[in-house]
Amino acid sequence: MEQETRGRTSRRRRARDGGGDTPKRKVNYRQLRNPFPQMAIFSDDQIAAMHESALQMLEELGIKVLLPEARQILARAGARVDESTQMVHIGRDIVEQALATAPKSITARAAVRERDLTLELGALTFQCGAGAPHATDLDRGRRPGTGRDFREFTKIVQHYDVLHMMPPVVEPQDIATNIRHYFTMEAQLSLSDKLPFVFARGTPQVSESFELLRDFRGLTDDEFQTDPHCYTVINTNSPRVIDTPMAQGLIDFARHRQLSIVTPFTLMGAMAPITVAGAVTLSHAEALAAITLTQMTNPGAPVMYGTFTSNVDMKSGAPAFGTPEHFKASLAAGQMARLIGLPWRCAGGSAANVNDAQAANETQFGLWGSLLAGATTIIHSAGWLEGGLTVSYEKIITDLEVLQMVAEMCAPTPAGPEEIALDAHDEVAPSGHFFGCAHTMARYQTQFYQPLVADWSNYGTWEENGSRTASERATGIWKKILHDDVRPPVDEAKVEALHRDIDRRTAKGGAQPES
Amino acid sequence: MEQETRGRTSRRRRARDGGGDTPKRKVNYRQLRNPFPQMAIFSDDQIAAMHESALQMLEELGIKVLLPEARQILARAGARVDESTQMVHIGRDIVEQALATAPKSITARAAVRERDLTLELGALTFQCGAGAPHATDLDRGRRPGTGRDFREFTKIVQHYDVLHMMPPVVEPQDIATNIRHYFTMEAQLSLSDKLPFVFARGTPQVSESFELLRDFRGLTDDEFQTDPHCYTVINTNSPRVIDTPMAQGLIDFARHRQLSIVTPFTLMGAMAPITVAGAVTLSHAEALAAITLTQMTNPGAPVMYGTFTSNVDMKSGAPAFGTPEHFKASLAAGQMARLIGLPWRCAGGSAANVNDAQAANETQFGLWGSLLAGATTIIHSAGWLEGGLTVSYEKIITDLEVLQMVAEMCAPTPAGPEEIALDAHDEVAPSGHFFGCAHTMARYQTQFYQPLVADWSNYGTWEENGSRTASERATGIWKKILHDDVRPPVDEAKVEALHRDIDRRTAKGGAQPES
Repeated sequence: MEQETRGRTSRRRRARDGGGDTPKRKVNYRQLRNPFPQMAIFSDDQIAAMHESALQMLEELGIKVLLPEARQILARAGARVDESTQMVHIGRDIVEQALATAPKSITARAAVRERDLTLELGALTFQCGAGAPHATDLDRGRRPGTGRDFREFTKIVQHYDVLHMMPPVVEPQDIATNIRHYFTMEAQLSLSDKLPFVFARGTPQVSESFELLRDFRGLTDDEFQTDPHCYTVINTNSPRVIDTPMAQGLIDFARHRQLSIVTPFTLMGAMAPITVAGAVTLSHAEALAAITLTQMTNPGAPVMYGTFTSNVDMKSGAPAFGTPEHFKASLAAGQMARLIGLPWRCAGGSAANVNDAQAANETQFGLWGSLLAGATTIIHSAGWLEGGLTVSYEKIITDLEVLQMVAEMCAPTPAGPEEIALDAHDEVAPSGHFFGCAHTMARYQTQFYQPLVADWSNYGTWEENGSRTASERATGIWKKILHDDVRPPVDEAKVEALHRDIDRRTAKGGAQPES
Repeated sequence: MEQETRGRTSRRRRARDGGGDTPKRKVNYRQLRNPFPQMAIFSDDQIAAMHESALQMLEELGIKVLLPEARQILARAGARVDESTQMVHIGRDIVEQALATAPKSITARAAVRERDLTLELGALTFQCGAGAPHATDLDRGRRPGTGRDFREFTKIVQHYDVLHMMPPVVEPQDIATNIRHYFTMEAQLSLSDKLPFVFARGTPQVSESFELLRDFRGLTDDEFQTDPHCYTVINTNSPRVIDTPMAQGLIDFARHRQLSIVTPFTLMGAMAPITVAGAVTLSHAEALAAITLTQMTNPGAPVMYGTFTSNVDMKSGAPAFGTPEHFKASLAAGQMARLIGLPWRCAGGSAANVNDAQAANETQFGLWGSLLAGATTIIHSAGWLEGGLTVSYEKIITDLEVLQMVAEMCAPTPAGPEEIALDAHDEVAPSGHFFGCAHTMARYQTQFYQPLVADWSNYGTWEENGSRTASERATGIWKKILHDDVRPPVDEAKVEALHRDIDRRTAKGGAQPES
């Protein structure tokens, strides 16, 4: 990131921009490294004991795998399978073999090289809130997600560099399920140049999605498989079940060397033990089982470790996010990830029903848990309400402010003699001000982060401007993005070919999801 | 903190509580240690260079000290003083001598020992937003602060253990300035048992405040001075001025061994250089000068290092808080504090005009800057709006949720075999749930943090309950505190004596503040 514009660079830029006097602040929010120290919640011994317990759980208690092919793959690798109960007992030697081949650094390919992602411990990527059945905004209210919402969210996510990959923000419920995967692929490929998401809803849909993507990118099968060109998220059915579409997804993505992000969703007190150590041990065991399935399918296949462990309200059973327990679980999961050395995903989130102070506080608190846990990818880092049942257009914008501020922290801050600036201190008399001094004049247009939605005006000015909350201001911001409709360059011929291909497949009946 | 209630303890508590089946979760938010890793923004060499530059600034450029007595004290210590310009040039040997006597650990005495504070590197204390000319709440709107507001805020701050000291939340503008210090002391002493605040508004008011406090606590002069029984915040007039009341405060508090928290308020681009390194160097120099004055007045007097460095909007000059630059400056100040080894204060804050997502996000972002900077005391950590021009009743409550969640992170989290809980994993079948298992049943009433204002109910329930935002719910919470009006035990005879003393002093005309 270039935070400052000085001397020759400044003059050159002004000249390049047509002689105007407003050099733009240049930032790079695309390739981030996590600048925050990593925090441990447990001792190394405790982490080792949790890992050991997870191995013991897989070996002795086993995990239920609903897909026969997956059981076969694990059996061939040496696991003990009981076909009558579908239980698979995975020995620690098999898990260790899987961890030895799972890649520690993954290059995920977007449409353009500037959008490629290096996924490894130390890297930092953000994903917008995803997977919501509902969408909400202040103009149109809360409603079941539609194809229109899906396309709008795709444009909004595309607009912000700090959102590094394209998620399925909302479920487009007005699109028939047999052709929904065409719709979501078309939107992502034609409106975005970021890493696309493919839902693991069974082999037929996944295979078709891979074909559409490979053809659109103009890749051979070999090229497609050299590095992953798309990703999916695999949620185990906690406790201790890998269901059919998830198992198919793990196998299909591994076979084609596309990226699976393995994520047991383990709410403490509900589908996981009530203790952080118990829940993370379960999550770890399930993640290890899923990772093992990918590596036994195709050694070296790209797979990310992951967790999403929070708690429920023990009075009502309602899920909660951005709680102290969620924060602690994220830290514990980060320690597990570092133990096995794999890139990993964590998540923020909020259970609030509206984009208010609770919503902001929970999402940011969960974000800090993920940041201090050293997560490679932080999912649901903007926009989630109602524990993921709704994504809010406005909350995406207000949360993005925080993500951009975090991204600012990733850039080095100079502190040489020019920044310490004894000359400036000498120039400004006691009780004076630095507004007009040479040191300030050389930097004032580019020094500070410019807020996205924060309004720093005084109360009187704010009142004159309509006393609008951050959410109300955010409405104007997302509307402008949709109105301007700036799209990344795409090859129109390829888009037309994609449409013809989708039309042809639709005419044949599409493909139903597995369940 | 006792997070769990098990076995005998649980039965004993139930018995003690009259046999009821709802063991209370016990927490201790009073004595916190910062559990977060400390983050550096600059290298050790850069920090050393900034310290060196600050010493050079004090020695060569000097600092303007408006109070003759303060100049005399510094002159006697060897500083070079120009009486015609009021500039004082403080040699590094004098600063080093001061740093050698400033205590590294301070025990600040409240009304009761459980409220005493240990202020040293590693400790963590929170202060509510303070010093605002205005108060606001959803019922009564925004208005100039009054005595009623001051008393109400005193009760609200008293109510929450996680707010560790009593601040002057709002300026009671309807109380005449010559007797305002009586009013604020009376409120703090009669309504609270926390460490009280005394404004440094000149020797007459400070001396009287000390007398009222000493008599109310029933202390001899010696006892009063053994440990500090109150604190003040000293803001230098950046750049490079210590004004008359501030200098008097530093001297008076040092003479009576009460606690000064030294805080240059250095907004980058306005009263400080536009660069983080420049602004923190200035802040450091001014803090060193103020600390030196205390130690030259009375070696060993309790004083805390401090900073409040954020940035302004370079288009409008409006102050901003909770920005990336604020965060970076906090980290740099933490490095400076560790270099000199003193306890220190940092600050959060928000420039938002209403308790919305911006307000929550800025305050929490600034909080994390202070936490990762390792601040001993985090001031303005709840309630600040408009960059401190207003404190919001509701925002105190919504910010307190975050402070309590941070306090939860301070307690150790067990991860032994009982928490890993292989038995529970065995008890719950694949796809089952942990709601009813023995491991959960033994813990469910006390395991998780119970939210203060967060509402985790689903959208339908939330809508049925009136679709209230967190701010709207917060109104009910502060109103209940004021309605219940639970007060700490006070000696009514002492309160009466205090009232008589105040009446007597008022009849004599009180004492005007210095300016």
